[in-house]
Amino acid sequence: MEVELKELLNDLQSLKKSLSDPSHLALIDKMHLHAENIAILENSGPTRRSKVKDMSAEVVDSNPYSRLMALQRMGIVENYERIREFSVAIVGIGGVGSVAAEMLTRCGIGRLLLYDYDKVELANMNRLFFRPEQVGMTKTDAAVQTLSEINPDVVLESYTLNITTVEGFDTFMSSLTNKSFRPTKSGSGVDLVLSCVDNYEARMVVNQACNELNQTWMESGVSEDAVSGHIQLLIPGESACFACVPPLVVASGIDERTLKREGVCAASLPTTMGVVAGLLVQNTLKYLLKFGQVSPYLGYNALKDYFPTMEMKPNTQCSNAACLERQKEYILAKPTRDAAAKAKADKEALSAPEYPVHADNEWNISVLDDNEVDGAVSRHSGVLAEGIVHELPVADEYPKPAITETDGPADDLEELRRQLEALNAD
Amino acid sequence: MEVELKELLNDLQSLKKSLSDPSHLALIDKMHLHAENIAILENSGPTRRSKVKDMSAEVVDSNPYSRLMALQRMGIVENYERIREFSVAIVGIGGVGSVAAEMLTRCGIGRLLLYDYDKVELANMNRLFFRPEQVGMTKTDAAVQTLSEINPDVVLESYTLNITTVEGFDTFMSSLTNKSFRPTKSGSGVDLVLSCVDNYEARMVVNQACNELNQTWMESGVSEDAVSGHIQLLIPGESACFACVPPLVVASGIDERTLKREGVCAASLPTTMGVVAGLLVQNTLKYLLKFGQVSPYLGYNALKDYFPTMEMKPNTQCSNAACLERQKEYILAKPTRDAAAKAKADKEALSAPEYPVHADNEWNISVLDDNEVDGAVSRHSGVLAEGIVHELPVADEYPKPAITETDGPADDLEELRRQLEALNAD
Repeated sequence: MEVELKELLNDLQSLKKSLSDPSHLALIDKMHLHAENIAILENSGPTRRSKVKDMSAEVVDSNPYSRLMALQRMGIVENYERIREFSVAIVGIGGVGSVAAEMLTRCGIGRLLLYDYDKVELANMNRLFFRPEQVGMTKTDAAVQTLSEINPDVVLESYTLNITTVEGFDTFMSSLTNKSFRPTKSGSGVDLVLSCVDNYEARMVVNQACNELNQTWMESGVSEDAVSGHIQLLIPGESACFACVPPLVVASGIDERTLKREGVCAASLPTTMGVVAGLLVQNTLKYLLKFGQVSPYLGYNALKDYFPTMEMKPNTQCSNAACLERQKEYILAKPTRDAAAKAKADKEALSAPEYPVHADNEWNISVLDDNEVDGAVSRHSGVLAEGIVHELPVADEYPKPAITETDGPADDLEELRRQLEALNAD
Repeated sequence: MEVELKELLNDLQSLKKSLSDPSHLALIDKMHLHAENIAILENSGPTRRSKVKDMSAEVVDSNPYSRLMALQRMGIVENYERIREFSVAIVGIGGVGSVAAEMLTRCGIGRLLLYDYDKVELANMNRLFFRPEQVGMTKTDAAVQTLSEINPDVVLESYTLNITTVEGFDTFMSSLTNKSFRPTKSGSGVDLVLSCVDNYEARMVVNQACNELNQTWMESGVSEDAVSGHIQLLIPGESACFACVPPLVVASGIDERTLKREGVCAASLPTTMGVVAGLLVQNTLKYLLKFGQVSPYLGYNALKDYFPTMEMKPNTQCSNAACLERQKEYILAKPTRDAAAKAKADKEALSAPEYPVHADNEWNISVLDDNEVDGAVSRHSGVLAEGIVHELPVADEYPKPAITETDGPADDLEELRRQLEALNAD
């Protein structure tokens, strides 16, 4: 439309030059004004939300953050506004990733890094987020378009690339380590990586990157038959990495590597993907803003409305070298962790008030203690909860990884663990 | 912009009449063409998805239903296309209702009836669905705008009204009983009512309408502190109605009637609302398309990722007269139900194949039997699952409802139930 308008304005100028009658000139000036108004209207577009400098808790209809800041007043979150400091990377902007991105955007996350190489298709319209008018756009471009309209306060970075290629992996790694958003942050440049990809290879690549960077991440997945899914928290060295334990899918015996088989169209539902995205971002908020219990693993079986949980310890025989390094570091740091935990407990015991903190709590809400053990759902370490099956052969059935170092890292780790356990057995 | 364009075209006409030089006239014709092109571009708008006559299972990127029809090939749903016959009414187009509407629209539901009287505000932007450019529109208008763009195949009816007013209730009732969409349907004009309102009064009105119409419905709710929610299935006469049992909120002691207190801004999160909407629509799909287990009640405690379930029987002392009528009908129909169930079981036993149905099942998926008892989560009748508290005083603490009929319906029902139990105790 811009081209047509420019042509029209040029023609008006030419005509004006060749005419001298004042009434003609007045008419041309009038037309010029109309054309300029059209240009203004064209560029104004739909009403846009302006940026907000500080998150206000003021209860007015025009405040986009009032219902979020209310979490503080209700005693759920101590400092909600901290969310603006955090960077979250989302790998895969499909049925789960796009909804996760929208949720974090509406929550006012500081910065989102989005990775995908795919384009929007009409076949994606059975999930939330993308609109038919975006068909043909890259998923990253379409996501940036929608998300920036929803909340211009969020810093969006999009990467249209495939992380499983050599070049893509390099860009992925450098984007994760870039600290320009918050130079004072320790570790990598992001606070959390969310894996929302649909295949085994891409998950292994995210796992490799996070193990190398010592970056905590969450994995998510939805089964090929659309009626089950899961989320999982992975802390390098502390919990099982994606290579430690074969991937799990609730109530499904499908090898995820078959997900993109030739001619096979996996089923999907906006419900299952919406629930998994909701659970994933809820866990993300709990992790970042430090409230409630962060789930190490949460499954969702839609046919039975069954939600198994469990914890998985790292595998000292893991085939991933970076994982073994992180395990070693985690074990070596145990005495420091124990001392810090003891100091914290001592301090809390000294300063604990004799009366309930919220005696005048008109909401009658009690904040749950993070250490409170969930009595309803048992959490096992390494043992599979009912309804969960291994999707790939268990570790024992894998060929032994080739050990290249002189002192095998596995034996080394086992020995280290034994020594530490002996030291701490007082 | 239309006005400006019209003025411009008029001015061009006037100028043309007063000029005679052929070069001037040619220039004016050229400008006219530009202006017309601007008008065409202005009216074309974004690309729209065209309507689809039949749901195809064809695996092509341009098929918006391929991933849904795949549910049939994977053995999850017997006949997915039946979804086009169903009408679902959604009362309340807020944080849960709007997302539920979008999910059903993307699933290709036949017809949606939407009820709300509120307008979109910036303060709603922390939940999914509405966009800042829709601020000031009624929620019903904004929803119809978005949903019709997403899937033009869905028949949308919107009602901008408050169902708790006398006039609003009348329109609500007549819209539910209108059978023009599927004249052959028995009962009311809709297959399911979803209550996604945020206050007690509106829930009681939906309850009244559904009891009067013998209409199955599902209730949903999110707590004022944003970290818990629930869904509940209500079948008049068969399960507890909303007046039978005081409303339940997981891990919260808040009276829902306080939800819209003056000056109080309830907290809300897109995660909790997205999960509740997802569980609600998943239960809706299971109910309508007959797969998996339809949950009678499902709670969601976000702080602990705890999901209690239970069943609630109707209260023979219920204060709602229409509920008591439905209870009576349900008890009287028991012999017919039992006979039908026995005939079905006999038929199945006769035709049961000796070999597994899906011996060549390459997906390795087994369809769960509807009658299979969930071993993982115990379902109690009337007993509250751990973590669930009554939100309002239990029924015993209520003043006894005034009984207007000569033979008290409560005693009548109890007697009827006793007689039937004696008859069926063989």
